[in-house]
Amino acid sequence: MYRTHNCGELRTSDINQTVTLTGWVQKSRDKGFVTWVDLRDRYGITQLIFDADRTNKNLMESAKKLGREFVIQVNGTVIERASKNSNIPTGDIEILVSDLTILNSSKLPPFTIEDETDGGEELRMKYRYLDIRRNSVKNNLIFRHKVTQEVRAYLSLKDFIEVETPYLIKSTPEGARDFVVPSRMNEGQFYALPQSPQTFKQLLMVGGMDKYFQIVKCFRDEDLRADRQPEFTQIDCEMAFVEQEDILETFEGLTKHLLKVINGVEINSFPRLTYDEAMKIYGNDKPDIRFDMKFGELNAVTQHKEFKVFNNSELVVGIAVPGGNNYSRKDIDNLIDWVKRPQIGASGMVYVRCNEDGSYKSSVDKFFDQDDFAKWAKLTSAKEGDLICILSGKKNEVRAQLSALRMELAERLNLRDPKEFAPLWITDFPLLEWDSEAKCYHAMHHPFTAPKSNQIALLDTNPASVKANAYDLVLNGNEIGGGSIRIHDKNTQALMLKHLGFSEDEAKEQFGFLMNAFEYGAPPHGGIAFGLDRLVAILGGQETIRDFIAFPKNNSGRDVMIDAPAPIDKEQLDELGLKTK
Amino acid sequence: MYRTHNCGELRTSDINQTVTLTGWVQKSRDKGFVTWVDLRDRYGITQLIFDADRTNKNLMESAKKLGREFVIQVNGTVIERASKNSNIPTGDIEILVSDLTILNSSKLPPFTIEDETDGGEELRMKYRYLDIRRNSVKNNLIFRHKVTQEVRAYLSLKDFIEVETPYLIKSTPEGARDFVVPSRMNEGQFYALPQSPQTFKQLLMVGGMDKYFQIVKCFRDEDLRADRQPEFTQIDCEMAFVEQEDILETFEGLTKHLLKVINGVEINSFPRLTYDEAMKIYGNDKPDIRFDMKFGELNAVTQHKEFKVFNNSELVVGIAVPGGNNYSRKDIDNLIDWVKRPQIGASGMVYVRCNEDGSYKSSVDKFFDQDDFAKWAKLTSAKEGDLICILSGKKNEVRAQLSALRMELAERLNLRDPKEFAPLWITDFPLLEWDSEAKCYHAMHHPFTAPKSNQIALLDTNPASVKANAYDLVLNGNEIGGGSIRIHDKNTQALMLKHLGFSEDEAKEQFGFLMNAFEYGAPPHGGIAFGLDRLVAILGGQETIRDFIAFPKNNSGRDVMIDAPAPIDKEQLDELGLKTK
Repeated sequence: MYRTHNCGELRTSDINQTVTLTGWVQKSRDKGFVTWVDLRDRYGITQLIFDADRTNKNLMESAKKLGREFVIQVNGTVIERASKNSNIPTGDIEILVSDLTILNSSKLPPFTIEDETDGGEELRMKYRYLDIRRNSVKNNLIFRHKVTQEVRAYLSLKDFIEVETPYLIKSTPEGARDFVVPSRMNEGQFYALPQSPQTFKQLLMVGGMDKYFQIVKCFRDEDLRADRQPEFTQIDCEMAFVEQEDILETFEGLTKHLLKVINGVEINSFPRLTYDEAMKIYGNDKPDIRFDMKFGELNAVTQHKEFKVFNNSELVVGIAVPGGNNYSRKDIDNLIDWVKRPQIGASGMVYVRCNEDGSYKSSVDKFFDQDDFAKWAKLTSAKEGDLICILSGKKNEVRAQLSALRMELAERLNLRDPKEFAPLWITDFPLLEWDSEAKCYHAMHHPFTAPKSNQIALLDTNPASVKANAYDLVLNGNEIGGGSIRIHDKNTQALMLKHLGFSEDEAKEQFGFLMNAFEYGAPPHGGIAFGLDRLVAILGGQETIRDFIAFPKNNSGRDVMIDAPAPIDKEQLDELGLKTK
Repeated sequence: MYRTHNCGELRTSDINQTVTLTGWVQKSRDKGFVTWVDLRDRYGITQLIFDADRTNKNLMESAKKLGREFVIQVNGTVIERASKNSNIPTGDIEILVSDLTILNSSKLPPFTIEDETDGGEELRMKYRYLDIRRNSVKNNLIFRHKVTQEVRAYLSLKDFIEVETPYLIKSTPEGARDFVVPSRMNEGQFYALPQSPQTFKQLLMVGGMDKYFQIVKCFRDEDLRADRQPEFTQIDCEMAFVEQEDILETFEGLTKHLLKVINGVEINSFPRLTYDEAMKIYGNDKPDIRFDMKFGELNAVTQHKEFKVFNNSELVVGIAVPGGNNYSRKDIDNLIDWVKRPQIGASGMVYVRCNEDGSYKSSVDKFFDQDDFAKWAKLTSAKEGDLICILSGKKNEVRAQLSALRMELAERLNLRDPKEFAPLWITDFPLLEWDSEAKCYHAMHHPFTAPKSNQIALLDTNPASVKANAYDLVLNGNEIGGGSIRIHDKNTQALMLKHLGFSEDEAKEQFGFLMNAFEYGAPPHGGIAFGLDRLVAILGGQETIRDFIAFPKNNSGRDVMIDAPAPIDKEQLDELGLKTK
């Protein structure tokens, strides 16, 4: 080793020891007669001192010449600091340097290696190896490591076996787009990278593995929305001989364990809502329940008046903004403008001020009286001092709009405390969702999800009403996990594929091996997959996943550091039997 | 849960308990008045009993109809067995069944689900989900899980951080062939799948992560030799501020830990040989040292006689076969034929019988006398009763031939005990190897490996003689890990690339980002990567890796279960801007 200690471990108990340290020059302060250097490594910062009384002249000169991010090795003696720094664990000591070796020099870095850097996103990505030196990014990566270690230890203790499934698999047109990989040894043929190990984990259940997990990369060649990555990591899990309740309990256990050991937060049991309830109460299947503002449906108490907007609406629904009666007229106009933006798309917003004296003042005073408003206040749980915001229109649209407003208000009111954790389960998802563009049903979760067993007949008569044994785990307004009980018999799987518009041939071509497997004693099974990047970010108290990924790609799917993707040689294309257009 | 207990856990202490079990019908024996069914799951086998006295008639009938691999659920009472089976942990009890539910039926499986199956390799691969039900494969996968858990726990305890590096990277023409991945969002451009995370782990060192590891899939589009896979798993590791000795100690520690906790074998310290020594003593850089048969070089004691074959040989070298004097003339002719096969390529073999009375009898008695043979015996450590086998020719060729013979003899003599573990380090590999086809030097390890610091000047004068700080860990004749101290300054890296025939532009295009990174304070660093598939197989006492991989590919790189790779839609090709030829 080039060092005897790291830069985070020396204390007053080490005073008078001779030590060798290595690291990067974080900064140096040259006061002429004395030079201090902050030496940094992964473990911390230790102050080095060179002073004219005790340090020889050549060494003093060398120390003065050290630039930021130089890599150095020093020998010296641990001494007590004259002025201690209680902000860092090594702040009581410093190293009186007797030898200095420059292991590598450094050009001036393109941004400061500080917690708050002056580097913009693109620059930080291009020099990601420098960005990782910053505490914030470095600690995120260490945090991610701790989370995955805990996940593995917990699941292993519960008899789960981590099994590696293949990355070079077969392309299926279902769902989001596959990345494909041309095969040189099988010209004209392609592998695909997995969007998830779904079929393989089901085959492991057929194979009797009983409890499987894997922390695994998955790939999706989709147009990237903000904060999505073409390659992402899942905690992928599957269990045999289970019902939905067993899976919810098992993975509630895992999540509780993580919250406890990682965040020190104990949560007794996670609330549950059905999909229908969540949509009704929060307008959203991944509600943030760190704060209230539940929807109050007002149709019953807004009809038969002269206000046509409400009379003609499929849904009239409001939320109470805590303390919102303080909003000025301008604040409220601003909110109205916000919901009318094309991204939200509301046609307008009705509001009711709940005065401290128990009276109400509203934008629709012409049509409704104080008794009406009292009813509205009751249904939205508005208290004196609140503001009721009401939207109306088509049910699905207005729910989405009010849900967006609810989140925006929570943001403005600072109700989304990243140190608070509010998990919940959403259950009973619809099996199918209507694709109005393609005029067909898609599987809401995926085509292997089992319908509720007593609703299979409804597939023929009212497919949209069929519910699935499918569930999501939601944390702080983000879906962190989702899963389902799977179909495990060939006939139901064939029926499901038929309803998804697969011909018998297509079904056989794409899922034949799975349906064959179902004929050889497939056990009942189900599972769940967690989005690790998102989970880690939320547990880490942050919203963006990018800084929990060592080498992320940008919104165009590019790695700007290594400049990938890139053209390849014609020779390489020839060998693959390919031509670019 | 469909069950209260699994099939491996009930004991006499559970007698009289009512239980529910699930699993697969391993076999059933119908004796008319009584039917026994062996119920199997991942955890074991439990015997079910249905008997005419205590079981109702319908249930008796249902039990008789159960086929192999049916998935069933039974309720019943734990009772003591009349005739106990001490071969299985549940052998003292059985379940008197009161209820039976068939959860899924099964077609007759295409091969028997037994430890010794009647299924051939291709059939087992096609129905891998059934193959995994067999104890041998299932236990291998569980074994692999245990090994990886131990690796992660050990390295984490030593302050290593597991960091996920990207799978969608950039193609480089260096070394074996990349799989490429066309990008839809960047038409005409390609990602590549990593052959290893080499550059990323070096960038993590530049980024100050200090100690990194990752258990990670790697990809190589090579013509597959037997027992190679296009996707394989590495334990990939890197450390900063280390010298070779630190890496050897750290990973000797890891390997000792695995041998101890996984195999119960304690090994004090691993022997070390330089590459030159290993080639001289074993003719091989991955010698199996579970047995002796060290090479004895005989040039000095075979010259100046009339036997021209030896006089004209660059190397005359022999090994002593323990007890080989027992071989019949036919046995020896057979050995001579074996070394003359084109795969080995020796032109012949000289032998000396070491008789029990201390005399020698040889195929070259005409040219040499008893004193000569005594010298040969001394140099090959042959004892009375042994047979000395001697090959001669060009040094490199004859070493490879004798090494092959040594392994073949060890196999025939049963000297390769899979329960014995003999690790060793091979160090001081040559930096470069001459490619006689391409008429240029290749990096023996990879182009980032550092030459020994005092030998850099030799790169210009005698490149073949330059040794590297590169090392392999060998276990039972297999390279299970290899690594090196890396170059960490731009100038040396540029020099190295120049010697490998890269122009400045090519070097910049392909490794520019790494060389740039070296300019911003790269620390000294080095690492190692273990081939997990091979390591697990050897620790598991087996030679082939395929049954330690859940879903392996065959020798043509095909997954015969899912039938991949496969052609893709023209539409998909169009979107990628590609045409097949």
